[in-house]
Amino acid sequence: MNVEGKAYRTIWLAQDGKTVEIIDQTKLPHEFTTVRLSNLEDAARAIRDMLVRGAPLIGATAAYGVCVALEDDASDARIAQVYETLLSTRPTAVNLRWALDDMRARLLALPREQRQRAAYRRAAEICDEDVEICSSIGDHGRDLISGLWEAKDRKGVINLLTHCNAGWLATVDWGTAIAPIYKAHDAGIPVHVWVDETRPRNQGASLTAWELGRHGVPHTVIVDNVGGHLMQHGQVDACIVGTDRTTAGGDVCNKIGTYLKALAADANSVPFYVALPSPTIDWTIEDGLRDIPIEQRDASEVSHITGRTDQGDVATVKLTPDGSPAANYAFDVTPARYVTGLITERGVCAASRDGLEALFPERKTLSA
Amino acid sequence: MNVEGKAYRTIWLAQDGKTVEIIDQTKLPHEFTTVRLSNLEDAARAIRDMLVRGAPLIGATAAYGVCVALEDDASDARIAQVYETLLSTRPTAVNLRWALDDMRARLLALPREQRQRAAYRRAAEICDEDVEICSSIGDHGRDLISGLWEAKDRKGVINLLTHCNAGWLATVDWGTAIAPIYKAHDAGIPVHVWVDETRPRNQGASLTAWELGRHGVPHTVIVDNVGGHLMQHGQVDACIVGTDRTTAGGDVCNKIGTYLKALAADANSVPFYVALPSPTIDWTIEDGLRDIPIEQRDASEVSHITGRTDQGDVATVKLTPDGSPAANYAFDVTPARYVTGLITERGVCAASRDGLEALFPERKTLSA
Repeated sequence: MNVEGKAYRTIWLAQDGKTVEIIDQTKLPHEFTTVRLSNLEDAARAIRDMLVRGAPLIGATAAYGVCVALEDDASDARIAQVYETLLSTRPTAVNLRWALDDMRARLLALPREQRQRAAYRRAAEICDEDVEICSSIGDHGRDLISGLWEAKDRKGVINLLTHCNAGWLATVDWGTAIAPIYKAHDAGIPVHVWVDETRPRNQGASLTAWELGRHGVPHTVIVDNVGGHLMQHGQVDACIVGTDRTTAGGDVCNKIGTYLKALAADANSVPFYVALPSPTIDWTIEDGLRDIPIEQRDASEVSHITGRTDQGDVATVKLTPDGSPAANYAFDVTPARYVTGLITERGVCAASRDGLEALFPERKTLSA
Repeated sequence: MNVEGKAYRTIWLAQDGKTVEIIDQTKLPHEFTTVRLSNLEDAARAIRDMLVRGAPLIGATAAYGVCVALEDDASDARIAQVYETLLSTRPTAVNLRWALDDMRARLLALPREQRQRAAYRRAAEICDEDVEICSSIGDHGRDLISGLWEAKDRKGVINLLTHCNAGWLATVDWGTAIAPIYKAHDAGIPVHVWVDETRPRNQGASLTAWELGRHGVPHTVIVDNVGGHLMQHGQVDACIVGTDRTTAGGDVCNKIGTYLKALAADANSVPFYVALPSPTIDWTIEDGLRDIPIEQRDASEVSHITGRTDQGDVATVKLTPDGSPAANYAFDVTPARYVTGLITERGVCAASRDGLEALFPERKTLSA
């Protein structure tokens, strides 16, 4: 998407055809910096220290990490070492393992001298495939927004509420939940986005607001407490969020607080959509509340916060009293009954096994 | 309540019998400082700059503000000037006007030389009456908590969730929503409090956590997004919150985000109680959603946040990107159907006109 009028992806091959460039997302929203990945350690650090985040972008970065790591040595032993090093950076990220398995299998099947070139080709494909999936999600979601706009007789503005960051910064381009919004905006539909700040890590206030602003999409940052009030007063036409994991029954595990917005949408008859690339569907589980363990992260993410001082420095401050413990649950599960529809790269379906199997019939055969 | 083992109120007459002392709540949770109010300007500044906040404490501070203002001149003209000066500090605070009306009417009825002494007497009464009301709310609420404890066969811990600060810092002592928790804790019931941080002003993380910690009540700070997840997993036995305004029909206007917690409580069969001194009941309105206008405060409360640096300084940092607007709705309305019960100084009742009129029959006569 656009940054001050220039089109960007979140990861791209540098002019030299060897090194890879990324946006350092830890510096956002206060500074836009790109970083060059020249070797295995650069790539591992970029994932581990969260210069890149979002499942699809982590996968793409791991794929390019393999490429830059094979410059001097493309042996089986080196590939095994690279695989282990990159896999250990974010052990729970599904796309990370998927991308590394894919790269390793393809490269080991080739003679050593062809491996690095093939790696670059496949990494580029992985990126392009992600862009294509997200673009398709965007098209299907744009049609939903277009329907809301027609239902309002093309008057006023379509107000959408989103939580966390499921925008292009979390993918290679377009994003998942925000892709429909970019497509609608680019198609001339007057959209406005309520951006949940998304405590504790503030991905909404720092990443979603930044990317919407750079692309020129009207938006307003709100604290996570506000969405219910807005829905009570007819100020939200639809919610669109992403998901980290979707069960075969349509339950959605996403950033903590998603569930509260789904409850408010349900209570106020506001459509609640979840956008997802099909690889985030976990066909092995049905009941998200029972079967998805919720990660607890460090309490310091709750007790401390980072921002920019008036002097332009980035500083971290403590919010809570000394001696008060904090708990930091990272995700919650929204039961399928609160989800109006799942927006996938193949179209929109009901949040249910029947709905998902109608779009992905090959899975039905597998599980039968 | 206790601060490091010493009993405090939020406002008290100093040793000299003339000046008044308060806790500077803008310094909490990082510093415990008391401030002396010696004249009208001190008192007006304490209210205006929110060194004191919470409706009952604002009323008590205004009453003592009248006392210290009459040292050299207790004329009708001076009383009129003092009234206007103090009233203008927080124009929407109901208790502020009530306390000033009460003081003015009593003082104007007396000879000039008796006025200051009568003012001190009445200000002390206003404080004592507030303590008595809050203590009664605490007793009735403690009985509810005791019932939850019995229902659990006196096993484990009673987990209570609260939002914002309705503790003793918002009143003269005890608090409203937190009074039942102090009473239960003091009675030996093992309580643990989930403290919503309460963005944007963080009254939970900075005031509620502080006062619970000082009194020794076990608690954990969470971001506002977490409560729904906890309720889904049986980790909340009841919610207890305060209210700024309660309609005759039982709708509750409280800090933004209260409504989302009420929805989650309803969806998960968790009792949701609202504690209130009866003066916060607005008998003139029935439908809170329709009839209570929601104040919007400055966007900088969302875009900026204040905390303590590692060096011990208090610093303010910006969270949002330049160019991203923010909206700051201060309150929301929780419809009566989501409220399990109202805890008043006269007992607990249903959140309905019938429920309220049964406890306050004199109001029934008035409205008939």
